[in-house]
Amino acid sequence: MDLKKYTKDGNISFCFGAFPTYELISKKSENVIEIILHEKISDSPDLQKIITLAKEKNIPIKTQGKLIEKLSSKENIYVMGVFKKYTSIIDNNENQVLLVSPSDMGNVGTIMREMLGFGYKNLGIIKPCVDIFNPKVIRASMGAIFGLNIQIFDDIHSYLNVNKNVKYPFMLKASTYLQSIQSISTPHTLIFGNEATGLSDNYLNLGTPILIKHTKNIDSLNLSMSAGIALYEFSKKEMEKLD
Amino acid sequence: MDLKKYTKDGNISFCFGAFPTYELISKKSENVIEIILHEKISDSPDLQKIITLAKEKNIPIKTQGKLIEKLSSKENIYVMGVFKKYTSIIDNNENQVLLVSPSDMGNVGTIMREMLGFGYKNLGIIKPCVDIFNPKVIRASMGAIFGLNIQIFDDIHSYLNVNKNVKYPFMLKASTYLQSIQSISTPHTLIFGNEATGLSDNYLNLGTPILIKHTKNIDSLNLSMSAGIALYEFSKKEMEKLD
Repeated sequence: MDLKKYTKDGNISFCFGAFPTYELISKKSENVIEIILHEKISDSPDLQKIITLAKEKNIPIKTQGKLIEKLSSKENIYVMGVFKKYTSIIDNNENQVLLVSPSDMGNVGTIMREMLGFGYKNLGIIKPCVDIFNPKVIRASMGAIFGLNIQIFDDIHSYLNVNKNVKYPFMLKASTYLQSIQSISTPHTLIFGNEATGLSDNYLNLGTPILIKHTKNIDSLNLSMSAGIALYEFSKKEMEKLD
Repeated sequence: MDLKKYTKDGNISFCFGAFPTYELISKKSENVIEIILHEKISDSPDLQKIITLAKEKNIPIKTQGKLIEKLSSKENIYVMGVFKKYTSIIDNNENQVLLVSPSDMGNVGTIMREMLGFGYKNLGIIKPCVDIFNPKVIRASMGAIFGLNIQIFDDIHSYLNVNKNVKYPFMLKASTYLQSIQSISTPHTLIFGNEATGLSDNYLNLGTPILIKHTKNIDSLNLSMSAGIALYEFSKKEMEKLD
């Protein structure tokens, strides 16, 4: 295959680095086209794990450093995975996160990672939104993207038509503080708006709007920080049960 | 003055953008040397606020777009502040954050902003550490740096000699979950280690080590996220009191 730099409209994407590549192979092996190594890669237990798993799943491995450099536009990338883009369906009986029109790739990747960390496996995203398969999202997620169900919706109505979870929209205009929340309904959906504009006032009528109370010395928390704090608070009981 | 690009060893630093520059003038006016505007800046209430405050504080304002471009290496910066670096002393009767050898400028700036958001005004930092006056730190803090007392210590012993706060080191090896914490001592110090190496095992003997429990699907939360979640949890009672 003649691999070209990533494009949004293409059918394939790339993940760079050992940890995300291992996640790709272990979670989405059926979509992996090939693994590419750089001549300069040094042997390590992590590399051996990747090679062993790729062989087990019959995934081709080739060594072609120049190609990695061309596709990644970065130095010091010694392993990458090439995979077919895929779609998945979120589980409407489970807790979810819903991002409404997120525009920053780093934020979306970071939130994917936080979700996996706090046991949330289902992510809905309302258009317009970032291209989730852009390698920058994958990199920010550190491969967490491959452990999640992610479904893109044309608009909020399409989501509300299929999902009956209790909704918690996070809004500066909300009057219930996250800090004071006593009981949490399950399954629920935590909803976050765009980085610059937040959620529109319509969301004040949806479920229980929540405010993460902070001092007036900052204008707002950033999106991935708000999501991380919300996920921490809502997953508390579940995390306490882990050993 | 013949302004050159920022250097760690120089006596002055720069903050770029309207919001951080306003914070600089309002919190540290005695250290501000001058405000520089770009010819392309458009009038706005934010700009008027900066100009009014600068005049009130007798701070010179000049217009020199080429200089901003040279110093910022970025496009779309239309206002900046030039200031003398300063030192401050943390208040050992107040809650604090202590960062041990942080190496990422973005993380340190982000944590400064979270601190201000959750009402923490005192930050200790143990060397080796990032240069807090690097414009990248200031930018990530969105000017929050100017609202904090920040003191750099040569080593942890120098800090422990002067600070008697109850200590909460955040460590993967800790056995107390943040999620389960019931009572919080005040004044306290929340301690976080380096991005790559965390805190050494010695810290297990200091105060009450805390773990932010997460699933095994990620190896750890990143530093600024851990600090944000910890600050959220420890400031809960104080934030609930705000209106």
